[in-house]
Amino acid sequence: MKVSARNLIPGKVVSVTKGDVNCEVVVEVAPGVEVVSVITRTSVENLGIEPGVEVRAMVKASSVMLTRE
Amino acid sequence: MKVSARNLIPGKVVSVTKGDVNCEVVVEVAPGVEVVSVITRTSVENLGIEPGVEVRAMVKASSVMLTRE
Amino acid sequence: MKVSARNLIPGKVVSVTKGDVNCEVVVEVAPGVEVVSVITRTSVENLGIEPGVEVRAMVKASSVMLTRE
Amino acid sequence: MKVSARNLIPGKVVSVTKGDVNCEVVVEVAPGVEVVSVITRTSVENLGIEPGVEVRAMVKASSVMLTRE
Amino acid sequence: MKVSARNLIPGKVVSVTKGDVNCEVVVEVAPGVEVVSVITRTSVENLGIEPGVEVRAMVKASSVMLTRE
Amino acid sequence: MKVSARNLIPGKVVSVTKGDVNCEVVVEVAPGVEVVSVITRTSVENLGIEPGVEVRAMVKASSVMLTRE
Repeated sequence: MKVSARNLIPGKVVSVTKGDVNCEVVVEVAPGVEVVSVITRTSVENLGIEPGVEVRAMVKASSVMLTRE
Repeated sequence: MKVSARNLIPGKVVSVTKGDVNCEVVVEVAPGVEVVSVITRTSVENLGIEPGVEVRAMVKASSVMLTRE
Repeated sequence: MKVSARNLIPGKVVSVTKGDVNCEVVVEVAPGVEVVSVITRTSVENLGIEPGVEVRAMVKASSVMLTRE
Repeated sequence: MKVSARNLIPGKVVSVTKGDVNCEVVVEVAPGVEVVSVITRTSVENLGIEPGVEVRAMVKASSVMLTRE
Repeated sequence: MKVSARNLIPGKVVSVTKGDVNCEVVVEVAPGVEVVSVITRTSVENLGIEPGVEVRAMVKASSVMLTRE
Repeated sequence: MKVSARNLIPGKVVSVTKGDVNCEVVVEVAPGVEVVSVITRTSVENLGIEPGVEVRAMVKASSVMLTRE
């Protein structure tokens, strides 16, 4: 399956914080660099997301802002 | 200024493709790893975004999905 | 590949309107029911999106609002 | 009221999972086809969202990605 | 029609910048306070968006970030 | 720090509703005009968001829709 989302960053799940509806998933994408995702609890369960699992963080380009010092 | 957005990834602008309203900006965040952003042309001009400029890609956690093989 | 996005609706591309950065893609997901997507021109080209192609419209649950009469 | 959001898909609420802040609402938009929405609990209460209620799922075109096999 | 989107801010259109696919619309919501929206050109035409028109800017709560000095 | 997000509206926090993962924050941006944000609980804690605190609501232009009567 190919996706139109331009950003697919591989990493490993570090932690999962579970709520009733949403979960926060922290993914380490490089040593010391983490990406944080909030997805539904159902998706966490469907994909078997738990610490140690290899995933990719996927972001649509229009959701990415830029900052400059 | 502190922001609630959980993802702030530093990198260097590689290319800017300009449209009338939006621009596509490619940012290298690690050797061989690129993040693509679509922002308004006005923001590109306001921030002086051009190849070589150091920026941070900013993404709200609720905009980050996960995929698993 | 499994994705956390909860909405994946199959359909067939009806039209593609191209801009310099973004394209508008109309997908028929049921007789008379269309879903409209705006993605980058690069993605349209990478995925070979053109009228007649079978795709799935993918939407993160947190991007879906509800209305009621 | 007319809205700029290009996607407005009618359906019937199938289930509501309540959290403290957000709720997950499943809407059947065609036989066997469901759309999942995450909205605030306050909105669920304000709109009287519960199983059986007729709603429309609303999505901005820029939030719709495409996938292709 | 009632919508789940929690933010509906009334204002008057100040300017419309047209692209092939998207348009940038600037809305004055209070004296000196502007909100900027990027929507499809088709929506601009469908809603008759042009300077002087009264509209409301609509934003899903999950799209709103916070910053603090 | 300069950000590409086009909308930065100053206001004062009115209330914070806490969930396990997300919090709903209501910000008064003008007398009688409120903006509602849903951000992670971690961000609420990192930024010290509580009633009375001055913040800015930040929204990417592509997340802003328009409605018209």
